[in-house]
Amino acid sequence: MHDLKRINVMEGILDENDHIASHTNKKLSQSKILCVNEMGAPGAGKTTVLKNIIKHMGELTPYVIEGDIESDIDTQELRKLGIKTYQINTFGACHLDAPMVHNMVNNIEFDEKGILFIENIGNLVCPAEFSIGEHIKMLISSVTEGSDKPYKYPVAFEKADIIILNKIDLLPYVDFDEDFFMKGVRALNKEVNVFKVSGRTGEGFEEVAEWIKSRSK
Amino acid sequence: MHDLKRINVMEGILDENDHIASHTNKKLSQSKILCVNEMGAPGAGKTTVLKNIIKHMGELTPYVIEGDIESDIDTQELRKLGIKTYQINTFGACHLDAPMVHNMVNNIEFDEKGILFIENIGNLVCPAEFSIGEHIKMLISSVTEGSDKPYKYPVAFEKADIIILNKIDLLPYVDFDEDFFMKGVRALNKEVNVFKVSGRTGEGFEEVAEWIKSRSK
Repeated sequence: MHDLKRINVMEGILDENDHIASHTNKKLSQSKILCVNEMGAPGAGKTTVLKNIIKHMGELTPYVIEGDIESDIDTQELRKLGIKTYQINTFGACHLDAPMVHNMVNNIEFDEKGILFIENIGNLVCPAEFSIGEHIKMLISSVTEGSDKPYKYPVAFEKADIIILNKIDLLPYVDFDEDFFMKGVRALNKEVNVFKVSGRTGEGFEEVAEWIKSRSK
Repeated sequence: MHDLKRINVMEGILDENDHIASHTNKKLSQSKILCVNEMGAPGAGKTTVLKNIIKHMGELTPYVIEGDIESDIDTQELRKLGIKTYQINTFGACHLDAPMVHNMVNNIEFDEKGILFIENIGNLVCPAEFSIGEHIKMLISSVTEGSDKPYKYPVAFEKADIIILNKIDLLPYVDFDEDFFMKGVRALNKEVNVFKVSGRTGEGFEEVAEWIKSRSK
């Protein structure tokens, strides 16, 4: 009984969410903005990954929306680098949803062809279930989290268009089984592109940036 | 309007949850079982921490409930070590709730004085908001996640009774600012005990186990 009520409420919320997300998606496409929804666990290195990708943007203007439960630490850091960054705080909610992003996107002046990166809340579960208007879902996983993550958080890996395996500079010091990781990824997602990078050394980001730019029209 | 409906539904769910959690808590206390709710981000090392603590249990019998969205990788691993382990899969839900744990606890035969560890879903957000009948909330944070986690996920740090800072063997290879981390912890939680450990080398777990055992009556 209780479960049924909860399911009905959730379905209603998801339908409404997807409807708003499709509006955002259309608006961004018309403005020639490619939208990347960046997801990953707390501490996977999401902000560091963004900083590294943005170094290789070429003529495309980068925009960032930072999603955080509280705080604007990352936004301050990105603004110092001259990146146009906008903050959404969810004050408790464990994922961004389409209305939050829609409201923010409507207040950004996109004056050039560019790429909008949206850093979602650090969470491997709920963000994967809520579209926010993105063209691409980018999942960050780090070698320090262990190689079993695709098996434990399958939805995030199944829905990803690109997977970034971060912190490869730490491979000599951790027990990360790349074959086991990739076997888990491929069981869920045959086509997804997987790039290995180090946010610390900058290794591997040129290829990531090229792939993302190739998706921009 | 929509938000109001959602808030009412959430409040109803939380009230009912807490009511069931208090039943579980009372039942476990009567059975002389201390219950530890273990929380942390995906890949923080929750299962490895449990394995290390359990080595130092002495005369107390350890029981484990493993919470996972899908899979039973960790349960299989713990059972191989002879630890009485029970699996809850949430199939999508991002946290354990009191009814799930209540049902499982009612099916475990606690025949000795002991400690029940409940490994929650890997998530730094929602598990902190749902009591499940525990006596102690134990939060695992790892140095590879970065020193800004208390600022970004304050509720988990605020509610913790014990914080385990894991993976200290990797300190030479990452940029972890312990002073900044501890400043964030203390701003939220003046009294919490913080222990530094390495799941890989086993360093620091005797002290953790002693502290937990001292809470068992």
